[in-house]
Amino acid sequence: MSPPQQIFAAVVGVGGVGKAFLAQLDFVRQRLAKQNPAIDLRLVLVRRSTKQIASKEFSHLDTNTVLKSLESSNEALPSFEDTVQHLSSAPGRVILVDNTSDLKLASTYPSILARGVSVVTPNKKGFSDNYKLWNDIFTAAANGSGPSTNGYVFHESTVGAGLPVLSSLRELIDTGDEVTRIEGVFSGTMSFLFNSFMPVGGGGGAFGAEVAKAKELGYTEPDPRDDLNGLDVARKLTILARIAGLPVESPTSFPVESLIPKELESCQSGDEFLQRLPEFDGQMDSLKAAAAKEGKVVRFVGSIDMATKSVKVGLQKFDVSHPIAALKGSDNIINFYTKRYGSNPLIIQGAGAGGDVTAMGVTADLLKVVRLVQKN
Amino acid sequence: MSPPQQIFAAVVGVGGVGKAFLAQLDFVRQRLAKQNPAIDLRLVLVRRSTKQIASKEFSHLDTNTVLKSLESSNEALPSFEDTVQHLSSAPGRVILVDNTSDLKLASTYPSILARGVSVVTPNKKGFSDNYKLWNDIFTAAANGSGPSTNGYVFHESTVGAGLPVLSSLRELIDTGDEVTRIEGVFSGTMSFLFNSFMPVGGGGGAFGAEVAKAKELGYTEPDPRDDLNGLDVARKLTILARIAGLPVESPTSFPVESLIPKELESCQSGDEFLQRLPEFDGQMDSLKAAAAKEGKVVRFVGSIDMATKSVKVGLQKFDVSHPIAALKGSDNIINFYTKRYGSNPLIIQGAGAGGDVTAMGVTADLLKVVRLVQKN
Repeated sequence: MSPPQQIFAAVVGVGGVGKAFLAQLDFVRQRLAKQNPAIDLRLVLVRRSTKQIASKEFSHLDTNTVLKSLESSNEALPSFEDTVQHLSSAPGRVILVDNTSDLKLASTYPSILARGVSVVTPNKKGFSDNYKLWNDIFTAAANGSGPSTNGYVFHESTVGAGLPVLSSLRELIDTGDEVTRIEGVFSGTMSFLFNSFMPVGGGGGAFGAEVAKAKELGYTEPDPRDDLNGLDVARKLTILARIAGLPVESPTSFPVESLIPKELESCQSGDEFLQRLPEFDGQMDSLKAAAAKEGKVVRFVGSIDMATKSVKVGLQKFDVSHPIAALKGSDNIINFYTKRYGSNPLIIQGAGAGGDVTAMGVTADLLKVVRLVQKN
Repeated sequence: MSPPQQIFAAVVGVGGVGKAFLAQLDFVRQRLAKQNPAIDLRLVLVRRSTKQIASKEFSHLDTNTVLKSLESSNEALPSFEDTVQHLSSAPGRVILVDNTSDLKLASTYPSILARGVSVVTPNKKGFSDNYKLWNDIFTAAANGSGPSTNGYVFHESTVGAGLPVLSSLRELIDTGDEVTRIEGVFSGTMSFLFNSFMPVGGGGGAFGAEVAKAKELGYTEPDPRDDLNGLDVARKLTILARIAGLPVESPTSFPVESLIPKELESCQSGDEFLQRLPEFDGQMDSLKAAAAKEGKVVRFVGSIDMATKSVKVGLQKFDVSHPIAALKGSDNIINFYTKRYGSNPLIIQGAGAGGDVTAMGVTADLLKVVRLVQKN
């Protein structure tokens, strides 16, 4: 029997998603050892903003030991360039797991991929920033138009966390279906907020108070304006539109409705913003009343119309019987309207945020790369 | 530049799904030629029950020419064993596309896989018959516990047609999530039938008449008893349960409710059955009335409870606000309840039957194999 094939994982970012990913990586290693002993998957590097632990000899690092060492280490942080250099000298294929939301790091994907290192990540930046970066990434990737000796790139968790959104869209397109429209609720925060503000069947609190409640419950970013400005949803729509074939230049090159009132754009802090937001409850109440009059509810959605090549993000009214209206909690829902699926869309629904489900998408992507680089 | 890597596709079965698959294969070949010229995917054999067209030299066969030749050919049909022998002599990896519903053919998967030939198929028989066959298939497959020189096997379209049901379930398990319950409507026929018989909001016709209407509209098998006996759904549940880790012996080893009244089990023909079915409308009407009294509707569902290891198929009542009640047309819906997804399940919904969407799952599986066997 030949010795097992070594595959090396390097992890950048150990926040909520990063820690959940490391736990899942432990599970995956144990499972592979039992079910596929021909593969020896090793964790060889963990890096965060100020520190890094790496095995020079590409031996496996124990997750718990690494996390403790990261806290106690006093070693100077090597440059990211030096780290990539080190990784590309590994005696086997390397998978870089980018659990950050760093655009600068994402900008290096093309050169990382060209060196044969694969990338799996929930980081939206590389795929939703300027169109040139998107093109450079997929020109370099082995699963784009790069040679098969280059790295692979997967980023399922950039839209809908672990929900099989991007893989499903790619399958529709790869097999020749014609996507006509994509529509959905792409933000757990916005989902929770509008399901509370205007539940089907009536009720719900004032908008300002609901935002404050959502923040308290941990459903928003530390500064809720980062959710309410719509940019997070716009980034996800940019990614979907590009996969569907629209060369969207950036997440600001199509209409995005911000829920931050003009008058509050100059607020100095998130707290000041939250305090003043209730002054504008009247505007949201009128929207709510207008929708209710038509038997509808208001939701914050993103949509892509392929015929008119239009992408937009903002408030929209939905009939109470529409699946988008019936969404619960902080769930995401994505509707793919296609030629083959006809009048009833292909729907994917479920939690679209949270450390565990986001990490799950990353881990599943890692397993895809492991299978692709396995020698046969 | 090295010459492109040849990968050979052989298709068995050219009914509705088979024809749709061949059209999609044409699309895929054209797309690969543009986007991945390192791969030369060839159609080298098409077989149906009485005839076969094959290229002895493994050159590509034009789809339309093959379909015409199949009609006019007078050549004797070689044995399937000889055909597999021929295929395994190909100068590269071979993918057998089984578009039949033949158990005998499915029983040969283990030996086909062991010879390095991959299998992609919407044929439920190999995965839902006796547990030994299931085990033999995955013991042989490169994506089971077989060596990576063996063939790969994928069968996404055996449950929910092209909907990403099996791939999603496998990802949940492969990344260490704990599935607690799976519940859904797994038959387009049953979906259409109950959405018509008892729509949310009231109305709907008598059961016997609705079955006759469904048959007329082409939503049932030629003999509607093949839908109403529940076996098709039981086969799908068997597959899901096995992937989830329950060693279900066969689709008859758990409770399956048949909608064929005892008294009509002896009917000689589907027509006689359809004619007499209205005699039993009263029973279905009482069920309907009882559900309505509780504010619920009746649906024909399958469910798997992992804690109690129980699988069952039959009628169940659902609150009108439940996603299963709100299903439309002949759509399928699958709810995965897991530890990570918490109280709101991961939901996948959409058309679960029809030539194009079924073939799409098969074509997507074929592309998975192409990527896995691509040299790197």
